[in-house]
Amino acid sequence: MSSARLANLRKSLLLSGMDALALNAGPSLVYLTGLHFHVSERPVVLFITAEGAPGMVLPELELPKLERLPFEIKPFPYGENPAGWKGVFLAAGKALGLEGKAIGVEPRSMRLLEFDCLKDIAGKAGYKDAGDMVGALRLHKDAQEVASIRKAVKIAQESLEAALRFIKIGITEKEIASELVLQLLRHGSDPELPFFPIVSSGPNGANPHAVPSDRKLQAGDLLVVDWGAAMDGYISDLTRTFAVGEVESEYRKIHRIVLEANAAGREAGKPGVPCASVDQAAREVIRQAGYGEYFIHRTGHGIGMEAHEEPYLRGDNVQLLEPGMVYTVEPGIYLPGRNGARIEDNMLITADGVDCLSDMPRELRLLK
Amino acid sequence: MSSARLANLRKSLLLSGMDALALNAGPSLVYLTGLHFHVSERPVVLFITAEGAPGMVLPELELPKLERLPFEIKPFPYGENPAGWKGVFLAAGKALGLEGKAIGVEPRSMRLLEFDCLKDIAGKAGYKDAGDMVGALRLHKDAQEVASIRKAVKIAQESLEAALRFIKIGITEKEIASELVLQLLRHGSDPELPFFPIVSSGPNGANPHAVPSDRKLQAGDLLVVDWGAAMDGYISDLTRTFAVGEVESEYRKIHRIVLEANAAGREAGKPGVPCASVDQAAREVIRQAGYGEYFIHRTGHGIGMEAHEEPYLRGDNVQLLEPGMVYTVEPGIYLPGRNGARIEDNMLITADGVDCLSDMPRELRLLK
Repeated sequence: MSSARLANLRKSLLLSGMDALALNAGPSLVYLTGLHFHVSERPVVLFITAEGAPGMVLPELELPKLERLPFEIKPFPYGENPAGWKGVFLAAGKALGLEGKAIGVEPRSMRLLEFDCLKDIAGKAGYKDAGDMVGALRLHKDAQEVASIRKAVKIAQESLEAALRFIKIGITEKEIASELVLQLLRHGSDPELPFFPIVSSGPNGANPHAVPSDRKLQAGDLLVVDWGAAMDGYISDLTRTFAVGEVESEYRKIHRIVLEANAAGREAGKPGVPCASVDQAAREVIRQAGYGEYFIHRTGHGIGMEAHEEPYLRGDNVQLLEPGMVYTVEPGIYLPGRNGARIEDNMLITADGVDCLSDMPRELRLLK
Repeated sequence: MSSARLANLRKSLLLSGMDALALNAGPSLVYLTGLHFHVSERPVVLFITAEGAPGMVLPELELPKLERLPFEIKPFPYGENPAGWKGVFLAAGKALGLEGKAIGVEPRSMRLLEFDCLKDIAGKAGYKDAGDMVGALRLHKDAQEVASIRKAVKIAQESLEAALRFIKIGITEKEIASELVLQLLRHGSDPELPFFPIVSSGPNGANPHAVPSDRKLQAGDLLVVDWGAAMDGYISDLTRTFAVGEVESEYRKIHRIVLEANAAGREAGKPGVPCASVDQAAREVIRQAGYGEYFIHRTGHGIGMEAHEEPYLRGDNVQLLEPGMVYTVEPGIYLPGRNGARIEDNMLITADGVDCLSDMPRELRLLK
């Protein structure tokens, strides 16, 4: 565990009135310890207390992962029979002095599987929502984290440029997605991609979270590609929209509006500005152009170890932007049953402004 | 929703004394509805009751996914501000008649994020563990599911054969893993792989769940490759162990013992035999050879939509094997700080015996 990250976490525990934090497998565990575990049928939980070495309940067969760590973690291993697991959790709670203490958990990460094993430890003091506390630790990226995100942006951009050469009328969304994944790996992305690319054409583009289908590209389609790469566990998340052959003038128009909204959103961020202002800047462009009801999601979200994390760029979010925050700006217009357009970039709040990490051309490019 | 699967689920609900099932995003939701959602900061929950159309709480922007379904799902959409989510869940519970009812949940899939939104609906009747009930539905694979798994095995085997041509002394575990992922995609795997390949060499092979590292292959290593492909959402999960250059005689010996244990485990399964017998058959070979303490995990696990699911081949599992069950047999010997060997195949229980779905050579092949 990086001693700086551990020290920060312990400071936050103290401020938030929690005695300990219980983390299951996932990005926060990686952030604090570098330890990767699959989220599986076998619960893995790290307990961090205000003082002393953290403890971890884990399967016996995972014990080798705790060797060669640069810090101590007390192991509480269990065997293959689930009947024995709860007892190991209770013993760990006792050994770590957690009985009756206020223990923080991350609701977005912890499953009932782990929680059922934990819940008898804290007793009356119960469990606290530590999601915001842990999220706040990961919210400000240091220079090394930013460097990884920059690389992930570069790899993503180069990969889509390479994949574009393969895209033409008649090939399917799934084929495009597979080619893009190949290019991402070839260009040096971590092999665990942040998410599987969204490749949606024509009416499928009206669904912001479409899954690539067997639909073939047709002249007249808008083509939305939402993709990202990963570098050393940090991710990029971009979107570009293309025209396939000749498209209706209204589709060119919505693309132009989204482009203006994207620019307004990119320019709106700086230290001290509330997240809501970025959302409003982008949304206002689309509203004034008469398409407000077709922009059906927030303007963006934080990125880092996850493709969605704090800060969230929502119209109701009063959280202030601060240096080191990294987030997406991704306005879109979705015309049900017809077509959709979205343009997404990755932004970094700097000491005195905002830096756009992505620079792939945003204009409506023509594919044939 | 396939009407057969829905009917089976409703029969199980009745038998288990539950009034409804609440499913969040994940494989069981795909199994019952075909609907794919990312597990994200936005909760998505499907409620299935004994009668009437199921209901789903989901983000407004995901509504397009409910169009063009071959069955009705009543949507309960929410906006981007999390402050409003709990209210939508409560309204859905009321509209679906769930207040005070016994609702089943899957502890392995449901997070505290969703559960916190649900928990006020059921009231005193509370929540039941529906993990085994839903697992039992997915446990017996039909002909189409088996055909997909067979294809996933074939793709995995062809991909590793292709990747082997690339493997030589001096390249790193990470490079091998990336090449193998490329080959999996090129050979037609679904792009969402079941898991990222384990490629572990020398001492890293003593960790059954090692993450590929920058370690370079050296003469004298055993090389463990644990990998799989996916086809139409169904997966394969195989392991082979190789010799890099000349290896110590003890390493050749543990490989031979694991090979015998694998054969014994593969032969032990048939309808009516308890899972424990398969584990014992493989384990006994390793124990008698004097390496019992170095076989530190169960002999196998079910596969299907997930890389780990029921049935679990553990020494204490009295569950009987039945036609349509598909599982791994994967004994291993792990010598801490030195080397490891594992050989894993995929098995299908048939009407009167067992079918081995994988046939890639298991003998110790030499890489240079």
